[in-house]
Amino acid sequence: MPHIAFEKMFEEFHRVLLKAGFAPERAELCARIFAENMRDGVYSHGLLRFPKFVEKACAGNSFDIDADLEKVGSFGVLEQWDGHLGPGMVNATACMERAIELARQHSMGCVALKNNNHWMRAGTYALQAAEAGFIGICWTNTTKLMPPWGSGEKRLGNNPLAVGVPRQEGHILLDMAMTQYSGGKTMIYSHNKESFPLPGGYDSEGELSCDPDAITESGRPLPIGYWKGSGLAFVLDMIAALLAGGRSTAQLSRQGDEYGVSQIFIAIDVKTVAGEQSLQETVEDIVGYMHEAAPLEEGGAVTYPGERMLETRRQNLAQGIPVDAEMWQDVLDM
Amino acid sequence: MPHIAFEKMFEEFHRVLLKAGFAPERAELCARIFAENMRDGVYSHGLLRFPKFVEKACAGNSFDIDADLEKVGSFGVLEQWDGHLGPGMVNATACMERAIELARQHSMGCVALKNNNHWMRAGTYALQAAEAGFIGICWTNTTKLMPPWGSGEKRLGNNPLAVGVPRQEGHILLDMAMTQYSGGKTMIYSHNKESFPLPGGYDSEGELSCDPDAITESGRPLPIGYWKGSGLAFVLDMIAALLAGGRSTAQLSRQGDEYGVSQIFIAIDVKTVAGEQSLQETVEDIVGYMHEAAPLEEGGAVTYPGERMLETRRQNLAQGIPVDAEMWQDVLDM
Repeated sequence: MPHIAFEKMFEEFHRVLLKAGFAPERAELCARIFAENMRDGVYSHGLLRFPKFVEKACAGNSFDIDADLEKVGSFGVLEQWDGHLGPGMVNATACMERAIELARQHSMGCVALKNNNHWMRAGTYALQAAEAGFIGICWTNTTKLMPPWGSGEKRLGNNPLAVGVPRQEGHILLDMAMTQYSGGKTMIYSHNKESFPLPGGYDSEGELSCDPDAITESGRPLPIGYWKGSGLAFVLDMIAALLAGGRSTAQLSRQGDEYGVSQIFIAIDVKTVAGEQSLQETVEDIVGYMHEAAPLEEGGAVTYPGERMLETRRQNLAQGIPVDAEMWQDVLDM
Repeated sequence: MPHIAFEKMFEEFHRVLLKAGFAPERAELCARIFAENMRDGVYSHGLLRFPKFVEKACAGNSFDIDADLEKVGSFGVLEQWDGHLGPGMVNATACMERAIELARQHSMGCVALKNNNHWMRAGTYALQAAEAGFIGICWTNTTKLMPPWGSGEKRLGNNPLAVGVPRQEGHILLDMAMTQYSGGKTMIYSHNKESFPLPGGYDSEGELSCDPDAITESGRPLPIGYWKGSGLAFVLDMIAALLAGGRSTAQLSRQGDEYGVSQIFIAIDVKTVAGEQSLQETVEDIVGYMHEAAPLEEGGAVTYPGERMLETRRQNLAQGIPVDAEMWQDVLDM
């Protein structure tokens, strides 16, 4: 498997996006996010989706690469913005930035965004907040991707949720879809002809299965914690649609294609609230307590959310980012 | 199984708490919450725990029934309060009330509470917000109750999270521990000598098991969604401890007994932000879309979070609340 240097990957993405007509700043931001997703080992939201992203942007159907965000409501520390179907990553970055500004003033800020396009990786925006020294919490709704508990019929989004907490040695980052394996992960496993390590859904016979293709075929990925992830996906969608005044999963599903999703961005000024020293001490104490847990497997490690990602990042920066040769060639040819 | 009328149950709890020395208002509030938990079918946080609660309150060890909440920090829309080891339900109710007040002024309010005692059912406070017309989000940390993913050694709380959204026909309520089955649920299944319907953890041989006692013995309840629930429990604890300046699960676990937990109460003025009509329409549309899903089992129903609880509430109010005869006699004898 070829390995590509981070800078080289960024440059190629950047070149293609400029060629596709993205304004310079937007081309740079989107290319950086795609390259960083690859750098961090989130291969489901990098090279794999890049050609489709460019195709959608160029088609212009329900995707306006020049659309500007607009503030459409202001309620104290909560603001409503309209993404006008612009590039999802550009809008999402601006909304988390705005939530951070609100949190600077009020300790907490919330931006509810409607009419956005796919933001790729939820963790990008939680990390953005953590990088600025804030707790970041964000989620998006999606079109229907999983059945509610008790049904075999898709009616819920997988509504990824990300939480970031600033840490000097590398931020804490939880980034999770409400399905046991996200759509992107499923694509990766399927592409590599691999089985999930644990059951990821039901097959068409209604049996729990580790086969990504069987689950895709049945349309029954498993919500995390069965009824619990089903319930969590439900309320995340409802809150996003209500606060943003935007589309719910129900509406997104009825319209067919996924565009114009609703997203929530929350920032909390934890440095001020906790105090810088207490922030560091508490985080280190909690991380340390976790690290002391005996691993089940010899040589295994018990890690905090985001820790393995940091290790992958270090590796990928040192040795280059592993890519599927064919997929990478496709980008070079674009 | 005997059935006790809600009012009768409230009166008995009330009588016992007054006898135990609770101030009149506090006795009434705690009795009401215990009785409402039973009314709503949350049997894990009613009669089952009442005698232990009274015992702890009377022992006075790390439980001060007369302690008053104190505001110890104010940062814009986020406030820090110290529960001074008072009755958990009394402190939690006051903190959600304060979060609602903050949300009335700023659309969103957050109270971070330290030094609290067990609040019993997380859903109580999310429902309190929903009843006032607000979105309520709250969670608590706990002492170590489950192993982080990759270890067999308990290092994480099960950190119940509750989310309430106001709905005219009965509020939406998600109330979930980060273990597949909460401690209370496990006690109930064990008491009734029943198996979990789905695997709830690992037995001492490291095999997934539906046997509540085998899981209690191994100390390995399953986090919802495996590594995902493990990560979510981790960040919920960290955020609660940081914002409250209170004990983390690590600290609670080191001290041995669980007292002085950290809790978060968030209220969002959804009626103002969404508008009353849009609130109703959006909620009904999302609920309706869910209800239309075909159930897997004939005669089954696909329900939103909190819907089955409302049905149980109706039944229990009409027919009385089912109780274990022995447990109920114990309360009568107190």
